[in-house]
Amino acid sequence: MNNFQFHNTTKIIFGKGTELQIAEEIKPFTNRVLLHYGGGSIKKTGLYDSICTSLTKAGIDFIELPGAMPNPRLGLVREGIALCKKEHIDFILAVGGGSVIDSAKAIAAGFYYEGDVWELFSGIEIKKALPLGCILTIPAAGSESSPHSVVTNEKGWYKRAIHSSFLAPKFAILNPELTFSLPAFQTACGVSDIMAHLMERYFTKVQKVDLTDRLIEATLKSVIRNALIVKDNPDDYDARAEIMWAGTIAHNDLLETGRVGDWGSHDVEHELSAMYDVAHGAGLSVIFPAWMKYVYNEHIAKFVQFFNRVFGVEIDIDSDERTVLEGIKRLENFFREMGLPVTLKELGVTDDRKGEMADKAAEAAPLGNFKKLFRDDIYAIYQIADI
Amino acid sequence: MNNFQFHNTTKIIFGKGTELQIAEEIKPFTNRVLLHYGGGSIKKTGLYDSICTSLTKAGIDFIELPGAMPNPRLGLVREGIALCKKEHIDFILAVGGGSVIDSAKAIAAGFYYEGDVWELFSGIEIKKALPLGCILTIPAAGSESSPHSVVTNEKGWYKRAIHSSFLAPKFAILNPELTFSLPAFQTACGVSDIMAHLMERYFTKVQKVDLTDRLIEATLKSVIRNALIVKDNPDDYDARAEIMWAGTIAHNDLLETGRVGDWGSHDVEHELSAMYDVAHGAGLSVIFPAWMKYVYNEHIAKFVQFFNRVFGVEIDIDSDERTVLEGIKRLENFFREMGLPVTLKELGVTDDRKGEMADKAAEAAPLGNFKKLFRDDIYAIYQIADI
Repeated sequence: MNNFQFHNTTKIIFGKGTELQIAEEIKPFTNRVLLHYGGGSIKKTGLYDSICTSLTKAGIDFIELPGAMPNPRLGLVREGIALCKKEHIDFILAVGGGSVIDSAKAIAAGFYYEGDVWELFSGIEIKKALPLGCILTIPAAGSESSPHSVVTNEKGWYKRAIHSSFLAPKFAILNPELTFSLPAFQTACGVSDIMAHLMERYFTKVQKVDLTDRLIEATLKSVIRNALIVKDNPDDYDARAEIMWAGTIAHNDLLETGRVGDWGSHDVEHELSAMYDVAHGAGLSVIFPAWMKYVYNEHIAKFVQFFNRVFGVEIDIDSDERTVLEGIKRLENFFREMGLPVTLKELGVTDDRKGEMADKAAEAAPLGNFKKLFRDDIYAIYQIADI
Repeated sequence: MNNFQFHNTTKIIFGKGTELQIAEEIKPFTNRVLLHYGGGSIKKTGLYDSICTSLTKAGIDFIELPGAMPNPRLGLVREGIALCKKEHIDFILAVGGGSVIDSAKAIAAGFYYEGDVWELFSGIEIKKALPLGCILTIPAAGSESSPHSVVTNEKGWYKRAIHSSFLAPKFAILNPELTFSLPAFQTACGVSDIMAHLMERYFTKVQKVDLTDRLIEATLKSVIRNALIVKDNPDDYDARAEIMWAGTIAHNDLLETGRVGDWGSHDVEHELSAMYDVAHGAGLSVIFPAWMKYVYNEHIAKFVQFFNRVFGVEIDIDSDERTVLEGIKRLENFFREMGLPVTLKELGVTDDRKGEMADKAAEAAPLGNFKKLFRDDIYAIYQIADI
């Protein structure tokens, strides 16, 4: 186990009706907020009205910035920063999924930065940020209590990340009821994203990390079990709740304590969703099995343990490889059962820009830690996915 | 799943040599601390010298209060409060195990309270406390990141608890190397205490808590596995590290999110360790199996799941009871293998004060949540343990 620091300070407010506490949570910080959200879905569900009423009643002024979209865009981030400055905003309330929260974090980081906000995405240290809080409506990205944000620059379609403890939300309100109305495909994409966060952390070269291995396995088993329940019963509160809480735990860095995650599949997928604007979760259900097929020989025992414990694959004592390949098949079958693609074709990618994507991804090479991926490795993974 | 709030703000600094960061962690708070510890063990191991050197070099003044002992005493807490007032202390550094940290928390709470500190233990709300931090040397109580403290009043030997977010340490330094020198029995008592924290949370009447069930099972499996490794190799860093980190996770309230723990066994045990001054962990290895035997029929499926998943007991489809009794036997066997008692006699209790203990415990009845325990139930559990 490696040395580590763990300090996650986001206050989680979880359960039925918790969005009604929004004013009470914001009050200690400010009475002037930017209300940042995506499209119209929060208006359709009544959440928007409920928030506006709560804020108004509590005397909290708010300026609105709608329009955050999946794979959130730098353009809107710049607009948000300008708006916050003009309107003397000192707190951002993000309402939505990971895209909205990531967009809010980028605005928060850019607010105090003298240069253009995109410069922060090339590794400049974030020294200060506006505080933010969120109401989560899509369990997936884990952004609600993480210090991370991923934004897409429309110029060249680069998708890049920033990381800073200043970006961790002060509070996150999670009401599983708000997720009942998510379409099945979007729910499935969220599940895939959560699983990917867990698997990225699982496949580490750090030895002797028994406890976190087991915590990751436990979380994955719960996500898989409850995803299938939700597929048949979208209004099952408890199953929605398990997935929502798992989504937070999967990405609050507890499960990466003492170990170094891989994150290669995320980077390989980022080029895919930047190039084709596909849902991140759907890209991951394609890339992750392909990545596994490409790398399992790096430490096959880890894969045997994983598929035995998480998917109940019997260990074939004559062939670790058979055990692992059976496991990957079960993972793919699970994704398919959830209505997710596991090949580029199923994802709707019909042209061949694999070389171009590999070139772009390789700009940040080597990717990953479990196996260091260079240009040819990345291309090979796209190739495996393209069957 | 129940609604919940989760907000654990303790910064964890984990790994080899981390005690050397002590001055750097204290500096942002103060340059005048109370250094609270137990007996001479930290002097023998060199930890005491290392801390004094770090503090002195950083210009941090410190006043010492040694003498905290297992089942920490109210007398010393009162002394600590007086000392902090006299010396204008504004931060407490606790160095040791749960007893020292609990003692420090009680001092911190009593510092700002106008009446006698023991009054807080009857449920008066704690509105303010001195900030504290700790260097943990015994993984067991989980006090290093919890808002709880348990203190024994020598007058009548009452053992009672306080709870307040003000009592959560600002930071906790955990270096598994500091636990190499723990005697085998003390290590085993710590393991028992950690397991009890997990099992108290596991046995809940709240339905559909799949994720936290699985996280608790995962933590227990890791503790059991690594306890046996440490038994044979006390200097195994990774196994010590797993147990130490599990001890924190077991009690930082993450694993009680959305559910209500039982805590009956802890209360039943408290009378035992208050009456006989036995190690808390040894009392728990006696009481927990007895409690299980008394209550399993309250929700036998939960026990079947527990022993199947945690101890690998095959489910006997003809008899849930046989499955559970086989499981309890395995738990007892594990405790015995660790050198822990599982009966009152093995604990060294030879006289019969079961009635007196039951009377005292029943003052706070009903105890527990999985099954509400009244005086006769408590007596029956002592009786089961007394074979």
